[in-house]
Amino acid sequence: MEGSAKINEELRPALKTLEVPQRLLLGPGPSNSHPEVLRAMALPSLGYLDPAFIQVLQDIQALLRYVWQTTNETTFCISGTGSAAMEACVANIVEKNDVVLVAVCGYFGSRLVDMAERYGADVRVVNKPWGQAFSLEEIREALEKHRPRVFGMVHVETSTGVVQPMEGIGALCREYDSLLLLDTVTSLGGVPVYIDAWGVDLAYSCSQKGLSASPGASPITVGPRALEKIRARRAKVPNWYLDLSLLEKYWGPQRQYHHTASMVCYYGLREALRVIAEEGVSASWKRHQENAAYLHSKLEELGLSMHVEKPWRAPTLTTVRIPDGIDGKALAGKLLAEEHIEIGNGIGDLAGKVWRIGLMGYNSNRESVDKLVAALGKLLG
Amino acid sequence: MEGSAKINEELRPALKTLEVPQRLLLGPGPSNSHPEVLRAMALPSLGYLDPAFIQVLQDIQALLRYVWQTTNETTFCISGTGSAAMEACVANIVEKNDVVLVAVCGYFGSRLVDMAERYGADVRVVNKPWGQAFSLEEIREALEKHRPRVFGMVHVETSTGVVQPMEGIGALCREYDSLLLLDTVTSLGGVPVYIDAWGVDLAYSCSQKGLSASPGASPITVGPRALEKIRARRAKVPNWYLDLSLLEKYWGPQRQYHHTASMVCYYGLREALRVIAEEGVSASWKRHQENAAYLHSKLEELGLSMHVEKPWRAPTLTTVRIPDGIDGKALAGKLLAEEHIEIGNGIGDLAGKVWRIGLMGYNSNRESVDKLVAALGKLLG
Repeated sequence: MEGSAKINEELRPALKTLEVPQRLLLGPGPSNSHPEVLRAMALPSLGYLDPAFIQVLQDIQALLRYVWQTTNETTFCISGTGSAAMEACVANIVEKNDVVLVAVCGYFGSRLVDMAERYGADVRVVNKPWGQAFSLEEIREALEKHRPRVFGMVHVETSTGVVQPMEGIGALCREYDSLLLLDTVTSLGGVPVYIDAWGVDLAYSCSQKGLSASPGASPITVGPRALEKIRARRAKVPNWYLDLSLLEKYWGPQRQYHHTASMVCYYGLREALRVIAEEGVSASWKRHQENAAYLHSKLEELGLSMHVEKPWRAPTLTTVRIPDGIDGKALAGKLLAEEHIEIGNGIGDLAGKVWRIGLMGYNSNRESVDKLVAALGKLLG
Repeated sequence: MEGSAKINEELRPALKTLEVPQRLLLGPGPSNSHPEVLRAMALPSLGYLDPAFIQVLQDIQALLRYVWQTTNETTFCISGTGSAAMEACVANIVEKNDVVLVAVCGYFGSRLVDMAERYGADVRVVNKPWGQAFSLEEIREALEKHRPRVFGMVHVETSTGVVQPMEGIGALCREYDSLLLLDTVTSLGGVPVYIDAWGVDLAYSCSQKGLSASPGASPITVGPRALEKIRARRAKVPNWYLDLSLLEKYWGPQRQYHHTASMVCYYGLREALRVIAEEGVSASWKRHQENAAYLHSKLEELGLSMHVEKPWRAPTLTTVRIPDGIDGKALAGKLLAEEHIEIGNGIGDLAGKVWRIGLMGYNSNRESVDKLVAALGKLLG
């Protein structure tokens, strides 16, 4: 043993083997994983250059292209959570003083603003109240006014449960020579996403909502227009871990070491995506749509009302107004402690005003709705 | 379904359930996980504010303080691999134009240089050949010459298998008013590390080497002198995902949302640390030391020689010289394909010259050595 230092045994905790309770996760994420995903996550580790692991990488790429509906070569996952994939997009696409326009109608739009500022962007913002989406005309006006290099928006706002209609936005961005950056964290797998048909230039997502894998391996896809800007960067990406030029050398034919991939999360993501491909992504979208409609009708029967108007309601995440006289946070706590069902509290502008109910991936089914509504009915008296 | 876009079913892959081969991982990482760790990773997901998950966070903190031998309050894990924990340290401690001195005697020292440059540091370097460590005198000279705000070094260089003697370095850094940043990626759990007794101001590690968890939740610890500099930053940390001031609000009593933790990796890390605490970290250090000595004697019996001189050999990672006339890469490939044993190839200055053999965590035992030496003996003829 080295040197003169002595071990401090007082720091040694005495702990038992880990046990965790089984919850029904109907909050803003994570969702519960398919049993096949849990099985995959207990598979043995592999080296990051093992041919068997390289096959996992290739499977993930092919499966992501399918669920995202893109032929983008640069489609893979980041060894981190959805927030890391978000930062990967921002860190690579933004250069100092680039004008970046962000459409903000919830927490995650604001986070895009914060991130872009950290990378030196000249950030402009167009706002809508929490619970609404943008019209094509509002977007045109903002693009006309700011002429951004990059226009960032959130497809489904996890803080509000609003789905942003996407048709026409990609064409507008081309008209104004802007790159379209899309957050698909709460849409991928559960809500129609057409990266290529919509003209999205780069996008990110997470693994733990519509895909129902564990957080820790997060999808990213970069189209040719975005790649062109990234390849022409004047300076190195000011983020080593998320530098696409380094990541591409690992995911590409060179298979050059960058970092040791979080392989168990990759296993889970691969398996979660396979389960979706087996169902068919359009069948998954339909299932999410139908179960959300069922949820909304059941909540209305309880006398509750939705925060978002019908056309903008996301099939993956619903914001329900907390009735007058009810302590929303206390009720959600009771639901977890007594019924083992998780729902989310409101955040930001909606804190204390709504609950956030997720029906995502593996959890988007009638049984989830029935269990939740029965438990809610009981607690609301 | 939204709009006019049509699904492209040609992108849909038809894949079978994931199966991966069982390998004996004796390369530079990952190591194989303890069966209790694999069991933990198949446990169900929890919300990031679930009291049961908060308990996992607290367990990880207590266990990390023990294996690192520190009372640092700011001790937790990052939702990413060891490289992300490395970047977390650099991103938070470095401000633009800070003089940062890095001791480089292998690949990971060079990576510290690259990262610090990306965060705007005025980076100075002191070098040694790949396979050597620094003397206290050499470090004193470099500190005297450069007077850095931060002095970064690697405890065990994964590219060379050298362990850097640490006694006296912390005191030197205090003398020169420098903060000591230590990479403990290939030492934590397998080699004595005394964060407090050595005067280390901030350190990072990974989960998949000496700890034998899966990559994806990576330890970081920050002492009071480093915290003081971080809290006095003039500008926001130019990295949202790894911003300690935000992470602390989640790990601290506020429990404020930052990102959804990669909980399954946290489960695995918690369980891997518990297994070490059960054994006792000093018993684990002793086991690594003994099995490495056994490996070295067995390799010498095969006629092979170690690249690193005895006093500098790390118990976790050994570099062995490839004999003349042998194609090292081809042999390692055969070892994996035919014997299901992974060893690493040399990188950087040692590419083509050495193999890298890890005996880390769960894999540090005589059986691993015997299997490897038998297989190597067979392939070397």
